[in-house]
Amino acid sequence: MFVDMPLDHLRAYLPERREPADFDDFWDRTLAEAREHDLNAVFEPYEADLALVDVADVTFAGFGGHPIKGWFIAPAGASGPLPCVMEFIGYGGGRGRPHDWLLWPAAGYATFVMDTRGQGGTWRSGDTPDPVGGNGAQIPGKLTQGVFDRHDYYYRRLYTDVVRAVEAARSHPLVDAGRVVVTGGSQGGGMALAAAALVPDLAYAFVNVPFMCDIRHAVEITDEDPYGELGRFCGIHRTRVEEIFATLGYFDGLHFAARARTPARFSVALRDGVTPPSTVFGAYNHYAGPKDITVWPFNGHEGGESQQALEQLRLARKILG
Amino acid sequence: MFVDMPLDHLRAYLPERREPADFDDFWDRTLAEAREHDLNAVFEPYEADLALVDVADVTFAGFGGHPIKGWFIAPAGASGPLPCVMEFIGYGGGRGRPHDWLLWPAAGYATFVMDTRGQGGTWRSGDTPDPVGGNGAQIPGKLTQGVFDRHDYYYRRLYTDVVRAVEAARSHPLVDAGRVVVTGGSQGGGMALAAAALVPDLAYAFVNVPFMCDIRHAVEITDEDPYGELGRFCGIHRTRVEEIFATLGYFDGLHFAARARTPARFSVALRDGVTPPSTVFGAYNHYAGPKDITVWPFNGHEGGESQQALEQLRLARKILG
Amino acid sequence: MFVDMPLDHLRAYLPERREPADFDDFWDRTLAEAREHDLNAVFEPYEADLALVDVADVTFAGFGGHPIKGWFIAPAGASGPLPCVMEFIGYGGGRGRPHDWLLWPAAGYATFVMDTRGQGGTWRSGDTPDPVGGNGAQIPGKLTQGVFDRHDYYYRRLYTDVVRAVEAARSHPLVDAGRVVVTGGSQGGGMALAAAALVPDLAYAFVNVPFMCDIRHAVEITDEDPYGELGRFCGIHRTRVEEIFATLGYFDGLHFAARARTPARFSVALRDGVTPPSTVFGAYNHYAGPKDITVWPFNGHEGGESQQALEQLRLARKILG
Amino acid sequence: MFVDMPLDHLRAYLPERREPADFDDFWDRTLAEAREHDLNAVFEPYEADLALVDVADVTFAGFGGHPIKGWFIAPAGASGPLPCVMEFIGYGGGRGRPHDWLLWPAAGYATFVMDTRGQGGTWRSGDTPDPVGGNGAQIPGKLTQGVFDRHDYYYRRLYTDVVRAVEAARSHPLVDAGRVVVTGGSQGGGMALAAAALVPDLAYAFVNVPFMCDIRHAVEITDEDPYGELGRFCGIHRTRVEEIFATLGYFDGLHFAARARTPARFSVALRDGVTPPSTVFGAYNHYAGPKDITVWPFNGHEGGESQQALEQLRLARKILG
Amino acid sequence: MFVDMPLDHLRAYLPERREPADFDDFWDRTLAEAREHDLNAVFEPYEADLALVDVADVTFAGFGGHPIKGWFIAPAGASGPLPCVMEFIGYGGGRGRPHDWLLWPAAGYATFVMDTRGQGGTWRSGDTPDPVGGNGAQIPGKLTQGVFDRHDYYYRRLYTDVVRAVEAARSHPLVDAGRVVVTGGSQGGGMALAAAALVPDLAYAFVNVPFMCDIRHAVEITDEDPYGELGRFCGIHRTRVEEIFATLGYFDGLHFAARARTPARFSVALRDGVTPPSTVFGAYNHYAGPKDITVWPFNGHEGGESQQALEQLRLARKILG
Amino acid sequence: MFVDMPLDHLRAYLPERREPADFDDFWDRTLAEAREHDLNAVFEPYEADLALVDVADVTFAGFGGHPIKGWFIAPAGASGPLPCVMEFIGYGGGRGRPHDWLLWPAAGYATFVMDTRGQGGTWRSGDTPDPVGGNGAQIPGKLTQGVFDRHDYYYRRLYTDVVRAVEAARSHPLVDAGRVVVTGGSQGGGMALAAAALVPDLAYAFVNVPFMCDIRHAVEITDEDPYGELGRFCGIHRTRVEEIFATLGYFDGLHFAARARTPARFSVALRDGVTPPSTVFGAYNHYAGPKDITVWPFNGHEGGESQQALEQLRLARKILG
Repeated sequence: MFVDMPLDHLRAYLPERREPADFDDFWDRTLAEAREHDLNAVFEPYEADLALVDVADVTFAGFGGHPIKGWFIAPAGASGPLPCVMEFIGYGGGRGRPHDWLLWPAAGYATFVMDTRGQGGTWRSGDTPDPVGGNGAQIPGKLTQGVFDRHDYYYRRLYTDVVRAVEAARSHPLVDAGRVVVTGGSQGGGMALAAAALVPDLAYAFVNVPFMCDIRHAVEITDEDPYGELGRFCGIHRTRVEEIFATLGYFDGLHFAARARTPARFSVALRDGVTPPSTVFGAYNHYAGPKDITVWPFNGHEGGESQQALEQLRLARKILG
Repeated sequence: MFVDMPLDHLRAYLPERREPADFDDFWDRTLAEAREHDLNAVFEPYEADLALVDVADVTFAGFGGHPIKGWFIAPAGASGPLPCVMEFIGYGGGRGRPHDWLLWPAAGYATFVMDTRGQGGTWRSGDTPDPVGGNGAQIPGKLTQGVFDRHDYYYRRLYTDVVRAVEAARSHPLVDAGRVVVTGGSQGGGMALAAAALVPDLAYAFVNVPFMCDIRHAVEITDEDPYGELGRFCGIHRTRVEEIFATLGYFDGLHFAARARTPARFSVALRDGVTPPSTVFGAYNHYAGPKDITVWPFNGHEGGESQQALEQLRLARKILG
Repeated sequence: MFVDMPLDHLRAYLPERREPADFDDFWDRTLAEAREHDLNAVFEPYEADLALVDVADVTFAGFGGHPIKGWFIAPAGASGPLPCVMEFIGYGGGRGRPHDWLLWPAAGYATFVMDTRGQGGTWRSGDTPDPVGGNGAQIPGKLTQGVFDRHDYYYRRLYTDVVRAVEAARSHPLVDAGRVVVTGGSQGGGMALAAAALVPDLAYAFVNVPFMCDIRHAVEITDEDPYGELGRFCGIHRTRVEEIFATLGYFDGLHFAARARTPARFSVALRDGVTPPSTVFGAYNHYAGPKDITVWPFNGHEGGESQQALEQLRLARKILG
Repeated sequence: MFVDMPLDHLRAYLPERREPADFDDFWDRTLAEAREHDLNAVFEPYEADLALVDVADVTFAGFGGHPIKGWFIAPAGASGPLPCVMEFIGYGGGRGRPHDWLLWPAAGYATFVMDTRGQGGTWRSGDTPDPVGGNGAQIPGKLTQGVFDRHDYYYRRLYTDVVRAVEAARSHPLVDAGRVVVTGGSQGGGMALAAAALVPDLAYAFVNVPFMCDIRHAVEITDEDPYGELGRFCGIHRTRVEEIFATLGYFDGLHFAARARTPARFSVALRDGVTPPSTVFGAYNHYAGPKDITVWPFNGHEGGESQQALEQLRLARKILG
Repeated sequence: MFVDMPLDHLRAYLPERREPADFDDFWDRTLAEAREHDLNAVFEPYEADLALVDVADVTFAGFGGHPIKGWFIAPAGASGPLPCVMEFIGYGGGRGRPHDWLLWPAAGYATFVMDTRGQGGTWRSGDTPDPVGGNGAQIPGKLTQGVFDRHDYYYRRLYTDVVRAVEAARSHPLVDAGRVVVTGGSQGGGMALAAAALVPDLAYAFVNVPFMCDIRHAVEITDEDPYGELGRFCGIHRTRVEEIFATLGYFDGLHFAARARTPARFSVALRDGVTPPSTVFGAYNHYAGPKDITVWPFNGHEGGESQQALEQLRLARKILG
Repeated sequence: MFVDMPLDHLRAYLPERREPADFDDFWDRTLAEAREHDLNAVFEPYEADLALVDVADVTFAGFGGHPIKGWFIAPAGASGPLPCVMEFIGYGGGRGRPHDWLLWPAAGYATFVMDTRGQGGTWRSGDTPDPVGGNGAQIPGKLTQGVFDRHDYYYRRLYTDVVRAVEAARSHPLVDAGRVVVTGGSQGGGMALAAAALVPDLAYAFVNVPFMCDIRHAVEITDEDPYGELGRFCGIHRTRVEEIFATLGYFDGLHFAARARTPARFSVALRDGVTPPSTVFGAYNHYAGPKDITVWPFNGHEGGESQQALEQLRLARKILG
């Protein structure tokens, strides 16, 4: 069952953007502040029992200088310079084990998997604490943590981690800084989209069924988590709804899309109740860089799965060699 | 449908306690550390549009000296000394509005409602942040926040807040410190049970369908939240299960029960899949103070509701005058 | 997720009214017939263990002279005349215990809680039988009891009880008959709306997420109970659907709204699948008295809860002193 | 999944009977009282568009002399005397249309289908009102209507109707009064079981997955409706549970079973959560007449369906010729 | 809740037909090929313990000459010629037992029940294997078996069986070949619709809530099975969706409707999420023969049940005598 | 929540085996018959866009000589001889794309992924038809296809394919036939277990949460699919249950376990309702080869996931070098 507008409406759908006036300032200051901490990217060799790849256990300083974990995986004995694919993870997951991330190394690229602070308890284990608490009550889940103040909001820390993760990857001697690609699905797609706007000179962005796009519209058309967490939270904090959306304006994928210059391939699924098609097309249609979009008419939030991976492998070959 | 053992088995059920050797030390040091911060209990008069009661908006220093909110409500114009009933709140809820708490004032007592840090987003709004983050990944919800280290675990902060809340209530000029009663259901029952062990000289404890009792047994017999959050978290962090339960040993209601001397009335419901009867009877049967228990054979986690309140009103009248 | 039209459409939505020609006659005769029985309002003092209030166990003669129960609660020792708030109860609930109704007495008013005949078995206990059976088959629940004939229909009896309850309240020496307010949510909101039309000289009506409004439209857009009971019943009695809606025309909130002159505050929730927004706005937009409406965009059928109560406290203060 | 004890335990399971001392008195007086009303069985010829059978629309005086509907269907032009099969209907259903009841007439017998007062709104339409209301609150559904007093309880009326229905059937000139069989499933099975005890000289009883057997045990082991209605009602009326079960003692299938002398074939299904196997075997094992039982190991409450019908056809042939 | 367009839109809804150019050829060749096998209809007398009817256990050669089972049931001792009603069965069901099919014989007609190859495992047992496997992967269920090639697709075999079943019925000496009616609901309705187009000279078709109509539209508006099976299959075989719908074009009820000349009565239910109203009206509005449609506004996929049967009995009387 | 016996009971649980007397004969003849067809293993080079591995698209002759697909993947440019890991797939899945299977190649081994005939429509696409139909009705899904005759039963074909797949792998010039390992989870675990008994000289078997073990016991303790398919089918074919289990006796993992000599590592999860722990331990405890078992106390059917993979990587390194 299609869960949103017909496809031709989606292609034409350009929702209004309600950006805070100081959106760019906010992010400039946030990133500048993060860069006051030394990046301190450490790549510790890690025995993963995988003959064809070399693995490093990564730590770098994210938002607030907090230590963020990751994996760096490259073809065994590669001498570089290599293209590098940054992997960002969906809501609730963590970096897991190195053998969870073999696609890009098997294709001959380096991959850098960023762990997600304070997540990694719902579907794949993570190893990175979020040492910062909230500025008020929160519903279970990180989506509402600190949402009453844009400076305290969880995604400020997370998206800053994303930018610093790319800097960490580029600091690795094997990596060709000019051939860095970002990719992710759902929350990971939202992170890739933020990176496409906040990080200069990325080679490409794969933005799959991205979360955190046209957020107010999303909670008006779906109850599925994670957007559902936000909707229920607004129901409880019913007198503070405008404060909440004022904060979220600094984190909406629509606003990142309008600033991005990175070439990008989006994907969207017409039966996706988690990140409904009109929220994805809203971001895609505002996207300011070179772009294309793959539509999966019969899929839900899983999107293209293996087939999406295949498409990306082929695109990567064209772009990165 | 009864969800656990038959009632006669429950009455005889005495599960083994696996207490950490330094349980008492841990709590002595935790409370001592908290008391290094000035209690700083402030009672701000609050206009609640309620003619028969006087309301104060309370702030006091909980764990780490963090400001914790609450309501203090007393019959209008009372001159004291008054008995005071401490209200602790179930998982996910917050202090809401003063008119949510009229039972005890209407009965002629003062009541002190402690807000729950970092909660108040799921079913009744709260106003108290938890400024401390986790020491590792967490599943949505506070139950697993910081669970890899007993010093970082969320309930260390919360139960310390409980002790400090009683001290704050006792500091109020209207309150007769010798007639303080603690009460709560579910998580609030767990907090009342902890108070019954950690706070000296309480007049009475009402411990309704308490959460956090015989925790490992609980996750083996129920999947319902909040215990379900812990079960799923153990499923994801499958190699760290023993670390998790090592921490939880410092917070298990069984261990508080064995130390309590406060007279107490428990209640339990035989169709309660959230805090299953054998976890409640486990704590009750280990409870070391004077005690009784009310059994609701046909109820689930809602327990006795209004009828439970009525029983408590009558018991309070007997105990407190 | 919003479950109905966008808010601006709702504000403009004026559904057609299909009133029976003898609607007013029907109610005039019904009430006249009820008044042939002596009202016989008895207020028995009741020990509720609540120091700040005085409670009476009420019995009065409702439809058919049947004894209807209630609570009358007033500030302890009040000498009057007092404003009085009539509380009507949602589907399946009963009057419970006096301490379930402390809001208005704590605010300094008298309150009169009318028990609901034949209900009180689903979520809060009631004490009032409905001695009348149906005129045909019924689906579980009172919504379809007697629906094949308007004279036998359950709500004829219930709404008549409502009118008599106001008369009973006004008969109490403490009550200022000119300052009687009706309030309720869901079925209770439907009862308040009926009262606003059938009872002269009410001071105010709080009509929260009212049930029984634009009933045919309701069963076409929602399957949730209680409207769902009616939809399923029509599915079984598929050849008698027009008879059913002919009866319901005498009980539709749209038709009461068009006759009401009482000043009213409605409330509506945009995620409410139980009493969908367009059924509430349908009644509101037809409402003929002075009126306003509070919209809760992120709530379901629970509506404004504590926050709604607070709004009502403040409105009551303005209206009633 | 088997939902109850293993089959060998079930075969040996003999639950304690807790019969009221005046059980037989109660039913003697109830039936005597009913018989003070003239039976007044009317068989109105009815055009059912069915060439092979003759149909009559039946009315007879049940409990309180209330008119009860039914169908009488016999092979077209039969001259009698014919065996007659009485059909009793499951919870919520009604007599529907004559062509819903072709099995027994096609086999050459007369059939008498008794409509169920006040039901017929949930899954097949009925035409018989229950003119009597309750003696207190009730949960949706008839199971709790009047349950606080055995004289007011719904099943007192229904089971009396059953006895009178057999008398009505026997009054028809085509029927051989010595060859009357009763049959039904679920509530209908409970009615057949009551008939087997209350009606003398029945030729046989088919008691399929009977409802209303070992009722207190039932609500302790299942939450499925209709037993679930009773469990939830006890949860709301939690202080009146013993009154409720005192009433139910007069209606428990266990007690009818111990009095029955009619030869009977029970059936039971091992995956039946609606009328769990141990409640059926409890009645079967207490059954005092000649008996046998068919066990369906892989079925739920649907039991043997067509295959059960086939077994009954063959048994009927043997018994009735 | 209505699940599709408003009724007036439905009545006017004429979806585009996208028929394969060789649709007629395909079916001409398919049927010609089937007729190369001898029909070989065998009617074995069967003891069904039913005095009023004679039953035969039927076998005939369907698609590929495969043996297909059925029941032939007629009034006992009838001498003919008799009208004959063909019964086709819903998805997952089989022919069951003769006493499951008494409606038409009781009305004085012969009935021929065709078993459904390879089904009969979900809700009523069947006895006919489908000896042919698939041409590729399939989702559980027959709906996708062989769907990558129109020659291998399951419904090619099934619809051919339908045509041959009518020929088998007409070969019986009791049957008046000019008074054969087809009927069925859901999948059975789809089969009746195919028959109305593929079989000449049928007297009438009852097409109830038919499945397999406007199939692509169906999977875009519902997730309920069986259409849901197809939607999920397309989600897995996401790169082969056009192949799948190319095959389905040969089996779509829209295309049969446009070719049918048989007088027909459709029925549709406005709360039917299984075969949504717009798919039924799509076929009905394209239907080229004399036609009418019965609308059940308050029913789901069960449609008119007994009441539908009654309507059909009366129509049959008018048409067939 | 633990879904089965306590762990110490599970370790001691040795269910009775009810093997057909001709079990070994049946399989000897089945495999001999299959080997009459030429194996005809073809390895077509396949461009998978993966620099580090070489991929071949495999076809070989399975049961009945039917062409079965697979992937053969090895480290790029490897010269062998290499150990080879055979991957068998869970119920409903197919071989997908080569990049779905990178674990073992990345560890330096060859891997051979066998596609599952007639599946691959539910969660990952497959490319292998099952050209054989059933011998009777079936419920949606392959589990009951042909179950009335052991020669026609689907799993006879599938397990024969398994044996032939190993022979195909061993025929590849890169593969060291003495170092072949089988692995799989759920249905794939059942296939690995069958291989461990039917294929000589395997180096090792990883049997994860295996399906098809102690089948009758399984359908008595769980309703979850796929066992649920079988339970429901027995409910419909309620008179043919013994025939069904007679067939299944030839395919029960208990019987393969008792014949296996291959060293094996099982895994089991204590919250697994799909393949409940006692069915896995039943097979494990009967397993006749060298063995060990990994227990995941807090997991459901997903078992150890990444962590299980890591354990297998390390075991493989020890066994295979």
